[in-house]
Amino acid sequence: MPPLDVPEGDPFGPHNLPYGVFSLGSDAGSDSGSGTDSGSGTGSGPADRRIGVRLGDHVLDAGAAATALGSPYAALLTRPTLNPLLAAGRTAWSDVRRALTAWVTVHRDTVAPFLYPLSSVTLHLPFEVADYVDFYSSEHHARNVGQIFRPDAEDSLTPNWKHLPIGYHGRSGTVVVSGTDVVRPSGQRKAPTDPAPVFGPSVRLDIEAEVGFVIGVPSPQGTSVPLTDFRDHVFGLCLLNDWSARDIQAWEYVPLGPFLGKSFATSVSAWITPLDALDEARVAPPERTHPLLPYLDDSADAMDEPGGYDLRISISVNGHTVSEPPFSSMYWTAAQQLAQMTVNGASLRTGDLYGSGTVSGPSPDQRGSLLELTWNGREPFELPDGKRSFLEDGDLVTLTAWAPGPNGVRVGLGEVSGRIVSGPIASGQVGSGPIVSG
Amino acid sequence: MPPLDVPEGDPFGPHNLPYGVFSLGSDAGSDSGSGTDSGSGTGSGPADRRIGVRLGDHVLDAGAAATALGSPYAALLTRPTLNPLLAAGRTAWSDVRRALTAWVTVHRDTVAPFLYPLSSVTLHLPFEVADYVDFYSSEHHARNVGQIFRPDAEDSLTPNWKHLPIGYHGRSGTVVVSGTDVVRPSGQRKAPTDPAPVFGPSVRLDIEAEVGFVIGVPSPQGTSVPLTDFRDHVFGLCLLNDWSARDIQAWEYVPLGPFLGKSFATSVSAWITPLDALDEARVAPPERTHPLLPYLDDSADAMDEPGGYDLRISISVNGHTVSEPPFSSMYWTAAQQLAQMTVNGASLRTGDLYGSGTVSGPSPDQRGSLLELTWNGREPFELPDGKRSFLEDGDLVTLTAWAPGPNGVRVGLGEVSGRIVSGPIASGQVGSGPIVSG
Repeated sequence: MPPLDVPEGDPFGPHNLPYGVFSLGSDAGSDSGSGTDSGSGTGSGPADRRIGVRLGDHVLDAGAAATALGSPYAALLTRPTLNPLLAAGRTAWSDVRRALTAWVTVHRDTVAPFLYPLSSVTLHLPFEVADYVDFYSSEHHARNVGQIFRPDAEDSLTPNWKHLPIGYHGRSGTVVVSGTDVVRPSGQRKAPTDPAPVFGPSVRLDIEAEVGFVIGVPSPQGTSVPLTDFRDHVFGLCLLNDWSARDIQAWEYVPLGPFLGKSFATSVSAWITPLDALDEARVAPPERTHPLLPYLDDSADAMDEPGGYDLRISISVNGHTVSEPPFSSMYWTAAQQLAQMTVNGASLRTGDLYGSGTVSGPSPDQRGSLLELTWNGREPFELPDGKRSFLEDGDLVTLTAWAPGPNGVRVGLGEVSGRIVSGPIASGQVGSGPIVSG
Repeated sequence: MPPLDVPEGDPFGPHNLPYGVFSLGSDAGSDSGSGTDSGSGTGSGPADRRIGVRLGDHVLDAGAAATALGSPYAALLTRPTLNPLLAAGRTAWSDVRRALTAWVTVHRDTVAPFLYPLSSVTLHLPFEVADYVDFYSSEHHARNVGQIFRPDAEDSLTPNWKHLPIGYHGRSGTVVVSGTDVVRPSGQRKAPTDPAPVFGPSVRLDIEAEVGFVIGVPSPQGTSVPLTDFRDHVFGLCLLNDWSARDIQAWEYVPLGPFLGKSFATSVSAWITPLDALDEARVAPPERTHPLLPYLDDSADAMDEPGGYDLRISISVNGHTVSEPPFSSMYWTAAQQLAQMTVNGASLRTGDLYGSGTVSGPSPDQRGSLLELTWNGREPFELPDGKRSFLEDGDLVTLTAWAPGPNGVRVGLGEVSGRIVSGPIASGQVGSGPIVSG
């Protein structure tokens, strides 16, 4: 079948057209046999990188196609990152998407030479990450965590939780593309029963299944972005795995929040799905149980369109599905997160990335972290090679997702995968005491 | 007096030579009458920006001087930011500094045409900030905060405090150069007695006097940087004001740490002082009261040189000195902070910035925040125009500092200043209830 004839119902058909950055030649060091989302690559400099658009199991060199067709967007598309396209704004985003749709349907003969099988290319981090913020917006996740760590608390949610989307800044320099190995972090940890902290590789290495939102259009410092301007600033979304070392995190996080328990790596999918591909996935968020201040009020009479997205996530460890978190269950929407993030006048920059927070649904098989799935290690799950409470070296974690699209066809969100590898401990002592998060 | 003849004892003599970025023409919008550290400027694009080295009350166009003298470092110095110089590494840093010293002493006639009075230039953010991390490393500050917010606690320090330098990520996109106005942030706050949170401009706007360290040489993800490699990675330091909205912070920060209470603005001085200018300022840090894990052990027998710096900071509000925090009293050193920040394998990038945390000394007139100076507003101080618990619109806050240099001459660290301006509230309701942090 010619590359442009994607099978009917393919989640990466012309109705989707997510953006990525690739170079020719598959990455020999990749963990991904399929060539999809295959790691940060080696030996490929920015000069070799091209903007690609996924079509079925191929990638279209968008810049080459634009140049061949004399498109006015060739300059935006012949770049080594998506950042210039992100910065171009909503009208340009729509125009480029409309053009791409025409190229892969009407101008098939012209663009066919610029299609490459995914297995023949290396995918790279598709944009330069400016600031990275992570939220905490699933009520089910927050309640699970509260019950695990504060079992005696009157309410498993902190008092502020229903009044604002809680968030914090993460490390943008360690955001990596799907397929990149994740070195097990070392650090301090201390169980309540330990007389002193010990040092060593994390023994409670976890995942957090999230959706990441990518800022295109910046905003000036000293101004805020209202809920209704969400689609003027956010270009699209990706899948995100917020790797978390629970033992390091438990010891360090009071009073200033997560730091080294998170900053060693955050993985994102290689494909950025434009919001324009997700119109059929929009849904109303869960009913609000507390009145919201006006800047966060997304009730139906305040908004033209619902703020939630129906994204069906699947988490697998070594190929075995362990959970299927529904993004539609998130209490706080991406528009509310954006309004919150800027309400104090903080500026936005092109390439800012913000994560939804762990996506956990109401039922046990919809939990978005191993912390919750194994209830802090007390209820391990079975894999063919043994039980898992937390991640072992060699484990490959993959998040995939899809959304409802036009005419019942799915919109594929690609995948974010990463394999755990043991790392050298450059300095310090290795501890041997029993570790209990708390 | 010719510009190159700086007065004897001038803190910006040839023994100092801090680096900045400037453009010609003073910034009409600046708050700073002196032209020093005069704001982010308007109408000057990166193409107009030049690397400058401060000498007395002049700035040397370092790139022009290097070009005129046929220096091999001309390419590094004819850039709009310091980042390429930062990335060049310790040997290049020493060589460039040696060359600059020769230019302003031996090659005076050649470089004289490239000197400009500070009053005739606009100073810019001197480097592109990659990630920004803020620490919490003054024991006096941490104990003051603990006593203010947790008066009934057995220990004013959290259990982890003496075992690791606590830190968190801040927003790098809102780091601004000295002289930039700071728009009073709005946000949610809720006093314990309020039935529900209210929205409005912060009424507890504060400062935090800090020292910022600037990463030059990157490190790969999956590796850590030992204490002894500090000077191979850190280029120099600056003054830093970590503006803080205490009411917003108090309501939001449990459980994930500071976010909007800090992310609206962080100001840094326009001059980056290279570590090589501060050799005479090195001092031993305070005696360690708890044993340290090997990766943080900076005892005399583990280190070639002491890890502390004797920097004398002064805080003024509207020109009146309100505090003089001593940096030598910091419990955790910048080398320990760097080792901590990377011990989990987090990479470093050129342009990473990390703040020391609020510098507070042991005595009441050495406290580095208004929160501490006024004991959470209960003990206001007097200014000619009235009392201050926290900052009023129009207040100009300036931090200055100096360090002991060679032959008893001071090394000036420049200044970081900012004026509070009221901002528009783009959306939301203004609350009127009484606010108490807690």
